[in-house]
Amino acid sequence: MPALSFELQHTDAASKARAGKITTDHGEILTPIFMPVGTVGTVKAVTQQQLHDVVQAQIILGNTYHLYLRPGLEVLEAAGGLHQFNGWHKPILTDSGGYQVFSLAAQRKIKEEGVTFRSHIDGSKLLFTPERVMDIQRSIGADIIMAFDECPPYPSEYKYAMDSMHLTHRWLDRCIGRLADTQPKYGYDQNLFPIVQGGTYKDLRKASAEFISSKNAVGNAIGGLSVGEPPEMMYEYCAWSCEHLPWQKPRYLMGVGTPWDLLECISHGVDMFDCVMPTRNGRNAMLFTSKGVINIDNKKWEKDFSVLDEVLDNGVSNYYTKAYVRHLFKAGEILGLQLASMQNLSFYLWLIGQAREHIIAGDFDSWRRAMIPVLKTRL
Amino acid sequence: MPALSFELQHTDAASKARAGKITTDHGEILTPIFMPVGTVGTVKAVTQQQLHDVVQAQIILGNTYHLYLRPGLEVLEAAGGLHQFNGWHKPILTDSGGYQVFSLAAQRKIKEEGVTFRSHIDGSKLLFTPERVMDIQRSIGADIIMAFDECPPYPSEYKYAMDSMHLTHRWLDRCIGRLADTQPKYGYDQNLFPIVQGGTYKDLRKASAEFISSKNAVGNAIGGLSVGEPPEMMYEYCAWSCEHLPWQKPRYLMGVGTPWDLLECISHGVDMFDCVMPTRNGRNAMLFTSKGVINIDNKKWEKDFSVLDEVLDNGVSNYYTKAYVRHLFKAGEILGLQLASMQNLSFYLWLIGQAREHIIAGDFDSWRRAMIPVLKTRL
Ligand SMILES: [Zn+2]
Ligand SMILES: [Zn+2]
Repeated sequence: MPALSFELQHTDAASKARAGKITTDHGEILTPIFMPVGTVGTVKAVTQQQLHDVVQAQIILGNTYHLYLRPGLEVLEAAGGLHQFNGWHKPILTDSGGYQVFSLAAQRKIKEEGVTFRSHIDGSKLLFTPERVMDIQRSIGADIIMAFDECPPYPSEYKYAMDSMHLTHRWLDRCIGRLADTQPKYGYDQNLFPIVQGGTYKDLRKASAEFISSKNAVGNAIGGLSVGEPPEMMYEYCAWSCEHLPWQKPRYLMGVGTPWDLLECISHGVDMFDCVMPTRNGRNAMLFTSKGVINIDNKKWEKDFSVLDEVLDNGVSNYYTKAYVRHLFKAGEILGLQLASMQNLSFYLWLIGQAREHIIAGDFDSWRRAMIPVLKTRL
Repeated sequence: MPALSFELQHTDAASKARAGKITTDHGEILTPIFMPVGTVGTVKAVTQQQLHDVVQAQIILGNTYHLYLRPGLEVLEAAGGLHQFNGWHKPILTDSGGYQVFSLAAQRKIKEEGVTFRSHIDGSKLLFTPERVMDIQRSIGADIIMAFDECPPYPSEYKYAMDSMHLTHRWLDRCIGRLADTQPKYGYDQNLFPIVQGGTYKDLRKASAEFISSKNAVGNAIGGLSVGEPPEMMYEYCAWSCEHLPWQKPRYLMGVGTPWDLLECISHGVDMFDCVMPTRNGRNAMLFTSKGVINIDNKKWEKDFSVLDEVLDNGVSNYYTKAYVRHLFKAGEILGLQLASMQNLSFYLWLIGQAREHIIAGDFDSWRRAMIPVLKTRL
């Protein structure tokens, strides 16, 4: 019996949306779910207590690349893994570091063995191989760990996308082999999710999804989307990838997206999402609310003493006013970043919880169609 | 009956320390008390819920100069005052803006009428008079408001200190007159505290304290200390000022100080303190704890998985580890500033609460003598 189990609870009649429950050694996750990104062991500007009580997060992400550089494996191992280190005792997922190597590191060079690159912090020369990345994720100790993949840019030539996909597949076999040869370090299980690649080519995506599926992992991920292609194309390739992944396993769409992206992709059968958008955009004064999008820097909120979002009953969104948060941003106060981050994350968790309720109630698809224009409204 | 009342509850036999209770229209304050500084309507990096639940603040400060510039009186009045604007519904004290005008503003010019200066934000030319500053504090709506004073630098010549003191006294009469001619704007009372000045000259300090006392205000403040003079001199002039202020009224020592400063000055009869040190030093990686002072940036904490301060039962100090907070500072993460600010403020409120308990228990002076070397320890 695998450590991670997935129970499909409800499926939508009018779409591919599903409600389910993932069980891990650190507790349960109700799906569909959004996972706040905790890059270096902290979801930026939010305490772990606030993540739990205000945001009501069920699982958070850690970035292998960032955690490897800081605090480093020696500290993480001495702590007893990331959960012990940062005090977040619910499930954690770590990415493989591949994406950061491609987007942040300098002088990266992809070879069959792995990727050489220079740290964006101190310039030191490093090598990530599939084996090394599995070892690092063993040391971090997340409940769900990701295979080491190459994420080709958009657009990519067919030949590049195909070669890259095959490299990702060969690396996957090496990841699986390494995990079979090693043990979790902290007494609870770790579960590998392989990643579908193949760029924006349907035959490649299908081949990749079928190869991935043949590994019979406890869950599967869709990578290489939301990398610059138009939203409609992202939805299309998301749907196509989902179709060729097993129905009975959770599907994780990596790095997506806007609130409306979430609803679209849930309708195609995605169960798990992560994105830096709620925290990053929040720190840049962009608030997502149940009534639409707010640029809180705008003069129009100067004397608007209505709360940020009265629908979110979390003690922050329904407590602080738009005028106050605007003032905090104008004055450059840290509290503005904190409140905006909590508003956006709470909203994402609220929205995905609503999606789950509507799937269970059987009216997800009509709710989604009504909701998307509201979410996109510029207030 | 004045809106603010002060009940002296216990006095220490071996020192001048007292325990008391201040009652305002926004609730009670147990003294001695430390007031976190909320410069522009936010105690930096701490939410109002955390101020209440984690820090356990009973009263916070606002800076008139900063609030006047941002968000400005129009917004504050439209909100219904600062309590409504920032959602802190316990007592608030505002300073008079004098100190900021002297320390932050450019091209300041002191005249009998008041002070002209340029905003440190947009360079606009402004004039603060005693009357204007009372009007501004009416618009902010704090429970305790401070007289407009000049705070002479240290050292000051006798002549300068004397002339400045007399100007502050004339300004005090104008403040009192203006308040008599105006009404609070938000339905609850506001209470003026005059300020003792007189530099580091005993005859001036005595004359100032006696002039101040003759106004029969509900509380009195000691200004012009902790401006660069040695600690022993600060303690001496604090004690001397206290001696010439009424026993039955709360005494507020402005802008002080370190944890050991608090204990020393409590022993001389001070009831109220404020200082940016816990938040500012916290943001610079200096943590005050019940066992001494920590530079959390230091490599020695890298693998120290003990909590910040197990004595403080607030869910932050006794939850996050030194190694984790050090990591947050090294990685430049906002959460580090949040946790350090909460640790330091919680510690200040804990320490002053301990002082109160020991005054009531009758062993304050011996406790203080034993505690100060512990607090000063560099860990
Ligand atoms: Zn994203
Ligand atoms: Zn100070």
